[in-house]
Amino acid sequence: MEEKPREKLKQLGLQVLKQLEERKNPDLVLPIRTLSNIYFDEKSRLIRLGDKIAHRTYLNVAHTRKFMQTLMVAAECKKIIEQGVTTSIRDLYYALKRTIPGTQENTFEEQNESDPIIEDLEAALNVLRESLHLQADRKGYVAGPLVVKDAGDIIDCSKMGSAGWAIPSNVEPEVIQFIENKAEFVLVIEKDAVWQRLNEDKFWKKHNCIILTGKGQPARGARRLINRLHNELKLPIYVLTDADPWGYYIYSVIKQGSINLSFLSDRLGTPDARFIGLTTQDVEEFGIAKNVTIKLDQGDIKRAQEMLNYVWFKPKEWQEELKHMLKVGYKLELEALSSKGIKFISEKYLPQKIKEQRFLP
Amino acid sequence: MEEKPREKLKQLGLQVLKQLEERKNPDLVLPIRTLSNIYFDEKSRLIRLGDKIAHRTYLNVAHTRKFMQTLMVAAECKKIIEQGVTTSIRDLYYALKRTIPGTQENTFEEQNESDPIIEDLEAALNVLRESLHLQADRKGYVAGPLVVKDAGDIIDCSKMGSAGWAIPSNVEPEVIQFIENKAEFVLVIEKDAVWQRLNEDKFWKKHNCIILTGKGQPARGARRLINRLHNELKLPIYVLTDADPWGYYIYSVIKQGSINLSFLSDRLGTPDARFIGLTTQDVEEFGIAKNVTIKLDQGDIKRAQEMLNYVWFKPKEWQEELKHMLKVGYKLELEALSSKGIKFISEKYLPQKIKEQRFLP
Repeated sequence: MEEKPREKLKQLGLQVLKQLEERKNPDLVLPIRTLSNIYFDEKSRLIRLGDKIAHRTYLNVAHTRKFMQTLMVAAECKKIIEQGVTTSIRDLYYALKRTIPGTQENTFEEQNESDPIIEDLEAALNVLRESLHLQADRKGYVAGPLVVKDAGDIIDCSKMGSAGWAIPSNVEPEVIQFIENKAEFVLVIEKDAVWQRLNEDKFWKKHNCIILTGKGQPARGARRLINRLHNELKLPIYVLTDADPWGYYIYSVIKQGSINLSFLSDRLGTPDARFIGLTTQDVEEFGIAKNVTIKLDQGDIKRAQEMLNYVWFKPKEWQEELKHMLKVGYKLELEALSSKGIKFISEKYLPQKIKEQRFLP
Repeated sequence: MEEKPREKLKQLGLQVLKQLEERKNPDLVLPIRTLSNIYFDEKSRLIRLGDKIAHRTYLNVAHTRKFMQTLMVAAECKKIIEQGVTTSIRDLYYALKRTIPGTQENTFEEQNESDPIIEDLEAALNVLRESLHLQADRKGYVAGPLVVKDAGDIIDCSKMGSAGWAIPSNVEPEVIQFIENKAEFVLVIEKDAVWQRLNEDKFWKKHNCIILTGKGQPARGARRLINRLHNELKLPIYVLTDADPWGYYIYSVIKQGSINLSFLSDRLGTPDARFIGLTTQDVEEFGIAKNVTIKLDQGDIKRAQEMLNYVWFKPKEWQEELKHMLKVGYKLELEALSSKGIKFISEKYLPQKIKEQRFLP
């Protein structure tokens, strides 16, 4: 991160102090994070937060509780940064939960009160929670000719056995440094089982690449790592998901960011990512048996129809694919390729797609 | 594994062949895996499968489909063992799914048809699915002074940065070997966030132990690893969970095995495991504020009452704890300890419990 999160938190406190000294109503300025302030930025090709703001003021009874909570969370983050420790958002909630002396009132009742405050601070200060020393949930694994340094330890992702390198919660440059890379691209895989298949086949060795799985929708750490691998190491990103609306949504989040975390899209999104598969058009193309496809249900159909209207699915290749899916009325999973043999995905499907550079935008 | 799974699969096939040659009705003998055949074995202190058996015969229309499926799964496992590859149970399903020529009938309609067949084979042949080259879902992390060898790679769990060593799907001795160990005990932690706290505090270094999280209910790989760490390296196992019925259930599965996988209890259960905390009695003992406890709901109360009657919760310490929980009417999470300071768990709570060896049986 370019900024100093501790300094930003300190400034926030000093500003409130100044307002108090000037006998003004203490006032925090926060970006509005609702849908009305979110847009798709054609230039950066990212889902972004607009510049509408809101005021959270102390002397407004509708704001007072949240005002207090915001300052409590900010103060705790400053404290843990200074102590050089990190904590989970659940621990943060418990660390701050108490009964206000002389009252029956608790500072926080549930974690769903403290979580949005963390997002407010991330958006207002333009810092990732990871830089506020808060751990996000983690999942996902990496293998390939990449060497990283993590908390002083050197980790060679080509020597991590069957398990791979586990993606940590926090992959910011102050924690994870790229020491050496020989890979030429990154293959991002929706499913861990497929990752394990490719790792066992040493796909990354044969194709000189990094294989990364987010185990479903990637957590923040995995998305940030993909972003850094692309931006810092200039690696092309190819995404491999099921041929279904959920798989295409996972791809779109990796690529454009998400509505929820729109204020972080430049750090979590990778607009240059490309989609390698699966598509429903692959069924004909690769001679996949119809009986391993799955009939679209009402939810799938509705979702695919909605996606046809999303700005980021407007390129003609995506329009074709979504219309094709609706026409044939089926979806399919990555594992369906196993009907052509267990190694079909690593020895045929992926090599052919990569060789012909046949990606969706 | 002591047996040769390939040989066992081959014997299964030869036996059917012999029956056919003798013009007998082909017949597979399978252990019954329903509750009626499951018991708690006081001697081994494990949940075990009894010796009731069932016959699955080809010339019984109620069995024919399952008979075919059993042989198909067995044949596929033999094939992938011979090819030296592993696969997921979902891939296995897709690899075997096809329309039987000349009919409208599929070999398998859904994965819930192939999954129980795998368990039948595990129980009948007394082999883990991992040894049949089928990947189980994986999760969980390890850190500490332990060096393992995985698929030829040497992994030092004391040099794995902030993420730890990811527990692989298959931790059988043919894949994972223990090369060196300096730890004196294993701390098994329900929650990853707490594991991360302890890893950051280098708890494993200060207390010369291995810290392991299963991220909730541990997957098979994590349970098998705990079993091996105890049996092969003679390490005591201490389990740390939330003070709630779910946490106590997680402990009981680690210790006695589960009803579902009762046929594998000797490999997945660790009867010598002990419970380090949390307990609801800790609230008074460690002066934890009442407002970080959570009121028991109807489900919790019912569950705790049931647990009072389980054979494995009969020791008086557990009876006391469960009755105490019901009396005070609250539960609490590991993160609640953060209300006493973020490092309270690593610097006070755990060291005191370990020093005084204050465990529940």
